Amino acid sequence: MLHIEFITDLGARVTVDVESADKLLDIQRQYGRLGWTSGEIPTGGYQFPHDNEADFDWTLIGARKWTNPEGEDMILHRGHAYRRRELEAVDSRKMKLPAAVKYSRGAKNTDPDHVREKADGEFEYVTLAIFRGGKRQERFAVPGGNRAPAQASAPTRPAARPQPAARPAPAPAQDEETPF
Amino acid sequence: MLHIEFITDLGARVTVDVESADKLLDIQRQYGRLGWTSGEIPTGGYQFPHDNEADFDWTLIGARKWTNPEGEDMILHRGHAYRRRELEAVDSRKMKLPAAVKYSRGAKNTDPDHVREKADGEFEYVTLAIFRGGKRQERFAVPGGNRAPAQASAPTRPAARPQPAARPAPAPAQDEETPF
Amino acid sequence: MLHIEFITDLGARVTVDVESADKLLDIQRQYGRLGWTSGEIPTGGYQFPHDNEADFDWTLIGARKWTNPEGEDMILHRGHAYRRRELEAVDSRKMKLPAAVKYSRGAKNTDPDHVREKADGEFEYVTLAIFRGGKRQERFAVPGGNRAPAQASAPTRPAARPQPAARPAPAPAQDEETPF
Amino acid sequence: MLHIEFITDLGARVTVDVESADKLLDIQRQYGRLGWTSGEIPTGGYQFPHDNEADFDWTLIGARKWTNPEGEDMILHRGHAYRRRELEAVDSRKMKLPAAVKYSRGAKNTDPDHVREKADGEFEYVTLAIFRGGKRQERFAVPGGNRAPAQASAPTRPAARPQPAARPAPAPAQDEETPF
Amino acid sequence: MLHIEFITDLGARVTVDVESADKLLDIQRQYGRLGWTSGEIPTGGYQFPHDNEADFDWTLIGARKWTNPEGEDMILHRGHAYRRRELEAVDSRKMKLPAAVKYSRGAKNTDPDHVREKADGEFEYVTLAIFRGGKRQERFAVPGGNRAPAQASAPTRPAARPQPAARPAPAPAQDEETPF
Repeated sequence: MLHIEFITDLGARVTVDVESADKLLDIQRQYGRLGWTSGEIPTGGYQFPHDNEADFDWTLIGARKWTNPEGEDMILHRGHAYRRRELEAVDSRKMKLPAAVKYSRGAKNTDPDHVREKADGEFEYVTLAIFRGGKRQERFAVPGGNRAPAQASAPTRPAARPQPAARPAPAPAQDEETPF
Repeated sequence: MLHIEFITDLGARVTVDVESADKLLDIQRQYGRLGWTSGEIPTGGYQFPHDNEADFDWTLIGARKWTNPEGEDMILHRGHAYRRRELEAVDSRKMKLPAAVKYSRGAKNTDPDHVREKADGEFEYVTLAIFRGGKRQERFAVPGGNRAPAQASAPTRPAARPQPAARPAPAPAQDEETPF
Repeated sequence: MLHIEFITDLGARVTVDVESADKLLDIQRQYGRLGWTSGEIPTGGYQFPHDNEADFDWTLIGARKWTNPEGEDMILHRGHAYRRRELEAVDSRKMKLPAAVKYSRGAKNTDPDHVREKADGEFEYVTLAIFRGGKRQERFAVPGGNRAPAQASAPTRPAARPQPAARPAPAPAQDEETPF
Repeated sequence: MLHIEFITDLGARVTVDVESADKLLDIQRQYGRLGWTSGEIPTGGYQFPHDNEADFDWTLIGARKWTNPEGEDMILHRGHAYRRRELEAVDSRKMKLPAAVKYSRGAKNTDPDHVREKADGEFEYVTLAIFRGGKRQERFAVPGGNRAPAQASAPTRPAARPQPAARPAPAPAQDEETPF
Repeated sequence: MLHIEFITDLGARVTVDVESADKLLDIQRQYGRLGWTSGEIPTGGYQFPHDNEADFDWTLIGARKWTNPEGEDMILHRGHAYRRRELEAVDSRKMKLPAAVKYSRGAKNTDPDHVREKADGEFEYVTLAIFRGGKRQERFAVPGGNRAPAQASAPTRPAARPQPAARPAPAPAQDEETPF
């Protein structure tokens, strides 16, 4: 038996029993669809393989796609809206990094220091997830979905798994312009 | 089986077993009525849809209505009294925000930095909850209650659900004047 | 089923199963008698009704009465000794506060910032509990005890409930003079 | 049923079920022998009665005796070596303290502020335990052991209780000279 | 019954039931192979005996060997790559330390203060593990493996134990040059 600790969409601390390890991602999808999250965003953001970005199942981390009033595709996670941004490959003598896709937002004055990253000038931002390198893992994809083209705004196919409860649209505070 | 972690009105850390996910809000109401809370107030306060404000069930977050000695309607949460305040819609080139209702209090010198928000001048305040945008969710309403007019001071209808124990009036320290 | 998390008198983290919610205070008394505590002292100290002070059951929060070498009545909680102090009612234009009884000690240099409160001059102190206003709650009283006169030094009647184990006298470090 | 949370010698977070409250110290001894600890060192160090020092059972807090390369008797706890030091009684107008035995080490630059105590000059140290005043408690003594003379270097008698597994000698980093 | 708390490779907080204490290391290996970790890296890094370094089973702490694009052998732990470095024995009047092998990386600006260690100049680094002194413990070795030569790049023999799921290659962000 396993037990996974969530913070619910209402901020409550709730543990859910899980029958076996192979059921764990299903449970994360099921409750992630309600906006429940488990654990903190890792420092520097979640790291996923680049080739998982196109059809990444955001419910795995309690996030979902959201179109802001300006019509932009965003990712909503715990009330914060993150913007998609493509990072070109770096190939200098000092650093060698493959191309990446990053989801980030501007830092707010209530964000703790250890999640703030510096950008050009005085901008500081917070990263939700970065997709870079690695090898695609099927377990991170939207279940039952055909592989979508490499664009975050690709429509998500309806999930085949049962949903314990429909989640009505939450009320996200609209972010200030995120520089990244 | 689920398990929800509370801080009781006496400050003790107590976990309560919950039979199934659809019983969770009932349990939160039942113990929230005693002043028990689960998890922390999210940074920037709880976010709820604007149209839930009139008949919001404050027991969901362990809070309750309270009239202070000056006759003002306040919301009491973990010994702090929060004042209702209406925020007008913002529609500038830089920001576009719908009208909102915010419950906040003046910051105290024992409040940690990450909950303090700056206001005009040197005032700092702490937000309990903000009701803005979104779509009304019935699950947040006082159960069995008719929809009250859009005023926090609307009398709460007696809850239909069984109460495990009556909560005698606690002894809230009266807040200093909260600027917000 | 409920589960309450304690820090034992030896500092260990121990959870105790509790059959039902109405047994919870009994369990807190039973283990509080051994010096076990659950949760942190709330910021600014525990808040209780003024009329509970005379016969307050300190085992509820893992504390106990203690007479220091100078013959003064103190309250001992997690190795710290707190002194009783009566606060007069405040009735100014800026603030209106009923009379209170406060248990506090001088701050030590190992106390974190968020528990330190400023006093006159450079004194800083830490509050364990404040009894002010509100309505007496029987559940906070020493069980089976007649109501004692309004003095912390009143002898506590022997508790009627079974004690799982006698607690030998611990070895409290004697506090420096507490200004409050 | 009780449940005690440990940090294992490998740093893992492991909870152990305990049948009843009177078995708790046995379990703490059993796993403490492996270097497992429960909870944090209290601020200012563990406080024990003075007369428990001679035959104190260090397994209760996951510590053990260790002789450093210079032949000195030390107490090893979570990879840190603590040195025994006798404190004379203080009997001034300002403070009155009985004689004590303290186990402490010099502070390292990775120690958080709240565990550092100031000594003469610029020295800072960290206390594991202080034995002062109070009344001897048999439950803190090495089980089955004859009372040893008042010296930390007294040989520990073999414990009568079953040991779940022998603990091979760990690899403590040798501390810098501890001033205290 | 025991229960071990993990952070999964996805950052979720999951507890796994363990039948008995002697099964604990098996469970740590089984889930560590998936990149799950339990507890924090101890301050100053994990401490292991020097003679365990050659065939240390990195799955015990949720880490694994990884060859970076420059062909260097690194240890990967929670998305950070650590470099192997041999420390010579110190034998001065002030300090006496046996030779050691240390796995460390350069500090990042999101690393909290208490894990940063100072090096020469302005470099700061973070230690994952240090192998120094002590006596080899078989329980830390790769199970079923022949003892490899004293080199971190020694090929790991396939583990004999059942693997619950293959872990596809993750997508580690390549570290900046680590000075240590």
